[in-house]
Amino acid sequence: MTVLETLRHDDIHELRLSRPPVNALNPELVSTLRKAVIAAPGQGARGIVLSGHAGMFSAGLDVPTLLQLDRAAMGEFWTEFVGLCEALGRSPIPVVAAITGHSPAGGAVLALFCDYRIMARGAFRIGLNEVQVGLVVPEVIQAAMRRLIGAHRAERLMVAGAMVDAEEAYRIGLVDELIDTELVVGRAVSWLQDLLKKPAQAMSETRRIARADLHAEFDRVAEIKSDAFAERWFCDEAQIVLKDMVAKLKAKRG
Amino acid sequence: MTVLETLRHDDIHELRLSRPPVNALNPELVSTLRKAVIAAPGQGARGIVLSGHAGMFSAGLDVPTLLQLDRAAMGEFWTEFVGLCEALGRSPIPVVAAITGHSPAGGAVLALFCDYRIMARGAFRIGLNEVQVGLVVPEVIQAAMRRLIGAHRAERLMVAGAMVDAEEAYRIGLVDELIDTELVVGRAVSWLQDLLKKPAQAMSETRRIARADLHAEFDRVAEIKSDAFAERWFCDEAQIVLKDMVAKLKAKRG
Amino acid sequence: MTVLETLRHDDIHELRLSRPPVNALNPELVSTLRKAVIAAPGQGARGIVLSGHAGMFSAGLDVPTLLQLDRAAMGEFWTEFVGLCEALGRSPIPVVAAITGHSPAGGAVLALFCDYRIMARGAFRIGLNEVQVGLVVPEVIQAAMRRLIGAHRAERLMVAGAMVDAEEAYRIGLVDELIDTELVVGRAVSWLQDLLKKPAQAMSETRRIARADLHAEFDRVAEIKSDAFAERWFCDEAQIVLKDMVAKLKAKRG
Repeated sequence: MTVLETLRHDDIHELRLSRPPVNALNPELVSTLRKAVIAAPGQGARGIVLSGHAGMFSAGLDVPTLLQLDRAAMGEFWTEFVGLCEALGRSPIPVVAAITGHSPAGGAVLALFCDYRIMARGAFRIGLNEVQVGLVVPEVIQAAMRRLIGAHRAERLMVAGAMVDAEEAYRIGLVDELIDTELVVGRAVSWLQDLLKKPAQAMSETRRIARADLHAEFDRVAEIKSDAFAERWFCDEAQIVLKDMVAKLKAKRG
Repeated sequence: MTVLETLRHDDIHELRLSRPPVNALNPELVSTLRKAVIAAPGQGARGIVLSGHAGMFSAGLDVPTLLQLDRAAMGEFWTEFVGLCEALGRSPIPVVAAITGHSPAGGAVLALFCDYRIMARGAFRIGLNEVQVGLVVPEVIQAAMRRLIGAHRAERLMVAGAMVDAEEAYRIGLVDELIDTELVVGRAVSWLQDLLKKPAQAMSETRRIARADLHAEFDRVAEIKSDAFAERWFCDEAQIVLKDMVAKLKAKRG
Repeated sequence: MTVLETLRHDDIHELRLSRPPVNALNPELVSTLRKAVIAAPGQGARGIVLSGHAGMFSAGLDVPTLLQLDRAAMGEFWTEFVGLCEALGRSPIPVVAAITGHSPAGGAVLALFCDYRIMARGAFRIGLNEVQVGLVVPEVIQAAMRRLIGAHRAERLMVAGAMVDAEEAYRIGLVDELIDTELVVGRAVSWLQDLLKKPAQAMSETRRIARADLHAEFDRVAEIKSDAFAERWFCDEAQIVLKDMVAKLKAKRG
């Protein structure tokens, strides 16, 4: 059973996260998605839709699974996750996040690196709540957040680990459009179809220049080779909060 | 017959684009305007208003004329056009764009480099629609757009080659004020008069520091000496779209 | 008699400007406040509230006193004032500006470098009106303004030396919240209490990364060692406007 479905809408390829119950990002899903994003243009895609299932885009990192990893494996996972962000941020073809529901932490992070974000209207939440679970938001993700909503608002939300609901996310520019849940993917496809009607080279090259600041962030990541996120994962503060969270999740599920 | 009129409102000089029917930017107008912007302070101007005629600020580059140019001449034209943007962006005295009507492509570009934009209220449109006609928006122009409306919104509009109407332009900060067409120039003059009442050296030096990021963009232009715009002008994609556009314009005019 | 009161609300320390009648920033107050901000974490503070008195946060620099200083003393004062901005901007613990009333010029500057700004609702004004009194807004302060309200809006307000009222300040993001005057300090304390409930290391490190651009501005200040502000203070334009302002203030007080 695959953790990622690919649906072809002509030359727009939908990559649908498909790891029940909440599309938690484990090493397999992250690695599979990264490869799929990179491979898509070579398979005829001119645009990508990244979607989840109705009500849940992705719950973010699969904490219970990741807590089993040792230091080396966690370092590898993080490199792979940043690589996935880079694949989205540097994609030569436009990518739309079809945020079909809740999108905390890692789910929100993936959406930040896409060209455009369409979110399901309703009682769904999105945001970088890493601080709430004892984790630090690294610079490359902070930079992506800043270019969407400005330096100060990004600082306030990330430092508090705040989530916002869909309406507020739209109001502040964290997402670009709201639409009913069942229409999110269709709207993402039609947004891409409109964009792909423009003269292709002019659109691609203007897009490359417009996103060069984001690309430069990944150049810096490559220079620094920071392992701070994985390092921090194992500190007492993070481990206590993360394990407590997992325990509560288990109790809740009965 | 001149393509540019100069009207003196005391020490505020209005440079009025005057090339019927649509103030299309041909080599003569670009060169004349560049010289006039640079010369104004030496001729007693303490502020500049850049205006068009009622209903049409400028339709942008004069495509039919420019399509006649060979590669070398197009390269020269582009250098001159960026030089005009630089003259506006680096002007030692404040410049207001009195956007008296439609302002697509090149018309919008000139407005971006002014200190302040006052646009005619009504069914007029403004925006960087270069992509729609197969052209790429170069970095120096993208940077000017970003500092007005933010990185993400600028990316979305430029990559799609989107135009917006006056109300939307005001809402997103692409223009600073809306007023009835016949009042645009008068309001631009009075805005400058207010600014020129402030202590002159303090105002000028604070302004210089505030616009240093824009000046730095032109330093980079000088370093790179990019000829990409002129290069691209001659590629198949652009030539086909541009020639098709000119053919349609001719057919329309009967 | 002290010019600064310290009030402890458990581990949140309120530094209250206390120099009647208008909390004008003279060398003693600037120096005392700088030391207090730097010392607070070592005295058990986990957060700082910077407050004024009801109706007046701070009227800014104490111009009548500063006009008595010679060139060297003015240079020293300015170094100390930028040092105070740096202490606020680099504080390892979060700082909230409790803007209890009017906050022109230097008062607004201090607020810019805090993490969060809560302002008294009502007929109070805030802004960088330096240009109005013949002074230049230096780059480090312009940078702080830009990251709150964007490059273009910051340029417009600073170049004109414009003040805005509380409602407008909130609308454009120059302040983060409005509340009745008597509730400003209490709200500042409770905002900090909420923030301090988050995992402490994750919050601090995410905050450090989010504010690194602001820190970098102070690195540049240290490199440049600019004395331009003090230099400019003694030029004719500034001296005439400043002395005229002081004369009018004296006449007004009878």
